Amino acid sequence: MSLYYRYHVFFCTNQREDGAACCADHGAQAMRDYAKRRIKALDLNGPGKCRINTAGCMDRCSEGPVLVVYPEGVWYTYVDHADIDEIIEEHLVHGRVVERLRIS
Amino acid sequence: MSLYYRYHVFFCTNQREDGAACCADHGAQAMRDYAKRRIKALDLNGPGKCRINTAGCMDRCSEGPVLVVYPEGVWYTYVDHADIDEIIEEHLVHGRVVERLRIS
Repeated sequence: MSLYYRYHVFFCTNQREDGAACCADHGAQAMRDYAKRRIKALDLNGPGKCRINTAGCMDRCSEGPVLVVYPEGVWYTYVDHADIDEIIEEHLVHGRVVERLRIS
Repeated sequence: MSLYYRYHVFFCTNQREDGAACCADHGAQAMRDYAKRRIKALDLNGPGKCRINTAGCMDRCSEGPVLVVYPEGVWYTYVDHADIDEIIEEHLVHGRVVERLRIS
């Protein structure tokens, strides 16, 4: 399988307007922006490497905030910058799933 | 590999403000909405089945409008509803890549 991006990461940044749980309420946009900056700083950004994307609602709101890494289809939740750093260092740099943050 | 969504489809719906080519200028949002309606009508929507998502810029603007199907990592462009119907019927229903619309 030839992949345009070796790792394509989608952060749900959806803001629900009905008061229900949503990723945006957990700082998803800021965390996505942080991940994008980190990937660029590490020179991991671009074709053949990584892409950090925003996405609309991925319909796992109650488990949020969520992101998903493809092509593996591994879903994560996160709380803070340290969690994002760990996902980058472990999964995107070394190809190791971070079980601690994984949602099934 | 146990996947939450068997097929997770991301439509770039990004609107660039600098006048450069972008997916939004090609009706990407309306096409994503159409795909979402079709998937629901075919009862293909949900965990274990398909998810149609919007996404921010996936940085293939000049090849747009683009969508990507994961976990395969197959990228497509499209012009009209018939193209979307073909991607749904061939790829999402029968698991066959639509080479005619594929971008490498």
